[in-house]
Amino acid sequence: MGDSTKTRKYLLQEKDIPAAWYNILPDLPAPFPPYISPATMKPITPDELAVIFPMELIMQEFSPNTWVDIPGEIIDIYKLWRPSPLFRAHNLEKALDTPAHIYYKYEGVSPAGSHKPNTAIAQAYYNKKAGINKISTETGAGQWGSALALAGALLDVDIEVFMVRVSYDQKPYRKFMINTWGAKVHASPSNLTDVGRKILAENPDSPGSLGIAISEAVEVAAKNPDTNYSLGSVLNHVCMHQTIIGLEAQKQMEMAGEYPDVVIGCHGGGSNFAGLALPYVRDKIKGGKSRLKILAAEPSACPTLTKGKYTYDFGDTGEMAPITMMYTLGHKFIPTGIHAGGLRYHGASPLISLLLVNKIIEAAAFDQKPCFDSAVLFARTEGILPAPESAHAIQAAVAEALDAKEKGEKRVILFNLSGHGHFDLAAYDAYNSGLIKDVALPQSSIDKGLESLPDVK
Amino acid sequence: MGDSTKTRKYLLQEKDIPAAWYNILPDLPAPFPPYISPATMKPITPDELAVIFPMELIMQEFSPNTWVDIPGEIIDIYKLWRPSPLFRAHNLEKALDTPAHIYYKYEGVSPAGSHKPNTAIAQAYYNKKAGINKISTETGAGQWGSALALAGALLDVDIEVFMVRVSYDQKPYRKFMINTWGAKVHASPSNLTDVGRKILAENPDSPGSLGIAISEAVEVAAKNPDTNYSLGSVLNHVCMHQTIIGLEAQKQMEMAGEYPDVVIGCHGGGSNFAGLALPYVRDKIKGGKSRLKILAAEPSACPTLTKGKYTYDFGDTGEMAPITMMYTLGHKFIPTGIHAGGLRYHGASPLISLLLVNKIIEAAAFDQKPCFDSAVLFARTEGILPAPESAHAIQAAVAEALDAKEKGEKRVILFNLSGHGHFDLAAYDAYNSGLIKDVALPQSSIDKGLESLPDVK
Repeated sequence: MGDSTKTRKYLLQEKDIPAAWYNILPDLPAPFPPYISPATMKPITPDELAVIFPMELIMQEFSPNTWVDIPGEIIDIYKLWRPSPLFRAHNLEKALDTPAHIYYKYEGVSPAGSHKPNTAIAQAYYNKKAGINKISTETGAGQWGSALALAGALLDVDIEVFMVRVSYDQKPYRKFMINTWGAKVHASPSNLTDVGRKILAENPDSPGSLGIAISEAVEVAAKNPDTNYSLGSVLNHVCMHQTIIGLEAQKQMEMAGEYPDVVIGCHGGGSNFAGLALPYVRDKIKGGKSRLKILAAEPSACPTLTKGKYTYDFGDTGEMAPITMMYTLGHKFIPTGIHAGGLRYHGASPLISLLLVNKIIEAAAFDQKPCFDSAVLFARTEGILPAPESAHAIQAAVAEALDAKEKGEKRVILFNLSGHGHFDLAAYDAYNSGLIKDVALPQSSIDKGLESLPDVK
Repeated sequence: MGDSTKTRKYLLQEKDIPAAWYNILPDLPAPFPPYISPATMKPITPDELAVIFPMELIMQEFSPNTWVDIPGEIIDIYKLWRPSPLFRAHNLEKALDTPAHIYYKYEGVSPAGSHKPNTAIAQAYYNKKAGINKISTETGAGQWGSALALAGALLDVDIEVFMVRVSYDQKPYRKFMINTWGAKVHASPSNLTDVGRKILAENPDSPGSLGIAISEAVEVAAKNPDTNYSLGSVLNHVCMHQTIIGLEAQKQMEMAGEYPDVVIGCHGGGSNFAGLALPYVRDKIKGGKSRLKILAAEPSACPTLTKGKYTYDFGDTGEMAPITMMYTLGHKFIPTGIHAGGLRYHGASPLISLLLVNKIIEAAAFDQKPCFDSAVLFARTEGILPAPESAHAIQAAVAEALDAKEKGEKRVILFNLSGHGHFDLAAYDAYNSGLIKDVALPQSSIDKGLESLPDVK
């Protein structure tokens, strides 16, 4: 059998799917700051949230319980692709000539091609259970919109997606995918909402932004009693649903007989990072793994965690979403154009922000070009073509592996490969044609974004 | 846990990857007709084939052994995605309200998104072992070209792909994928070959065809001693490499505690069909499963098996490839434009043809529109967005399931979901926009194609 004895992937069976999500709230090292209502500028009440969210998700958002049972109906749908595989990247290690052991959890096996369905299924389920048959949402490059469209198809819920116009025009495949699963998709800004009409009146050619699309989707949900809103990242319940990634990974690392020295995820709003990292944060806080490094990898074009401010800010451009305590570049910050559309968000998960300010996790920013270098190296060694977002986690893992090589250390690195890049091949074409360049983000852009911060007492 | 007790997929571990491919040649019910050399019009010799193929693959093409060991190096690479999952389509069964049990083997988990890497890896390996560092090939919609590009990246072999011009222009994503894995790709007809130049001289706007692209790739291999040629379907050794699909599926069906009544694959050149079917053909011939139905599903726009003739014909338009005994519509037959580019081939695997003429397997043709109906139903119930080629297998399975319902029979149906449709979303957009229509293939097109048959004594 030659060299066929080495294990490349660690596979769990359906019975090994975790029975509960991990809720980090009771384990946090500091009190979780309350959300502020944009209407009253006072701590938001569950009733205010109930206008756009079902009560079970609101309860999860503030749950005092460490473990929240996953309903059987959700586990049953998870089985369409879960448990996801955990790979040992033997070929990448060899190419880097590193003593490090590199593992990656692969979430691109979901039908939508990313980790997003883990929470999309859960959110559609709890809405359906609450009698809601329609959900509005936003999407940037389309990963979240397609995940919620999939959930809508499987759970018989109507889905309406506001897609950032520039992506709507430039990345039609995700839009076609959303349509095929039976959901509606509009270019945002649209003339279907007050927010959209106002922005179009000022600038008919607006390319849109995630912040604008969120405002449109929230408006639709707020104005229609039969419609709720769903967010694909940032919030506590979203991060909690994603912990299934890390909980599975912990079982698989046990099968591999190793424990990571470094745990890495890319960071946009925070959900895929949280998904892998939070169960390891628990080990670090409660399980004696105090030396474990947990690293969020973000783009230098949108350096929320490394150059943002830890303060209260709006979640959206239109100032309709709750104001939360988080790392932010200001809700009017405009990131430079990069291919990792999912990482272009001005803010961050409040949970992840709290862990960062308390130095339990770390963050690092990476330029686009080296991320693509590493993504292509990964594709040519491990086979899988990564999403540009996930390429940031690969690049961080490569940097760790090269550092371990320089120091002659065995180091066990685990990262989250949150999705495949099948819908991002125009970005790879740009890279292959030498058109990917990094332009330093001017400090003035950050300063300007921070001017938009609200005044919260 | 609610209804979470039902099993959706049957997963094998890496150690369960079959150690040998199944070679059906010694089990055939009739002698395998010799290949004819287009140069001499006499039975082809291994030496003639050695101009473009490595000797180990030529030996496999005519091997008398039932089992051919898979080298450890190939198994090691297979582990990047194999064993592939076998699913029970509970949701599809429910949507059809059928007593049938529907299972599908899913080959879209490979990094290239289809079954094609099963043979691409093997072919690149045997060429590399023979000291060949460059392989030329053709591709239609791009599934085969991307699979060989992946194999080239993993095994360090240069790959040059001639891609049918219409696909090259209309489906750029597969081309970008091929480039990302480090391979070269040219629109065919090109001015790099005599065949290409001749066709361009007659028609500078030629959209190309698979037959033309094969001629170009064969010419490059024939003229360059350092270059070999690789074919993604049709030939015996290709079908043999694909039997890993059926061998795994047999183990998984055993885990499910069922044996199929019907085994289905879509049919273009024959390789994904052969991959699932041949191990079951063995059961039928040698294992007492005489009542097992084995069905090849082809498009009515290119009805090779259902309306073609069983006779000797060229494998390519340029009349450079071996002449084989097979079902064919004539090597100058031009199929109408359908989205399942991988099924638009005038001929068929000689192995599959021999099994069909001996009534061991069956064939049926399906129109494009109902195939998309079933593909979309599948996407909305099982989640996975299928390739238009694979949609033909789904449609055949749906027809069987509905027939079982009508007759009130429990029937166990197994089909091969050969790939995902992430690069075919323009086709889904056409479907969603009501633009998929079926035009009956005129008998005159078939008659005209059959006029091109060569005269072999």
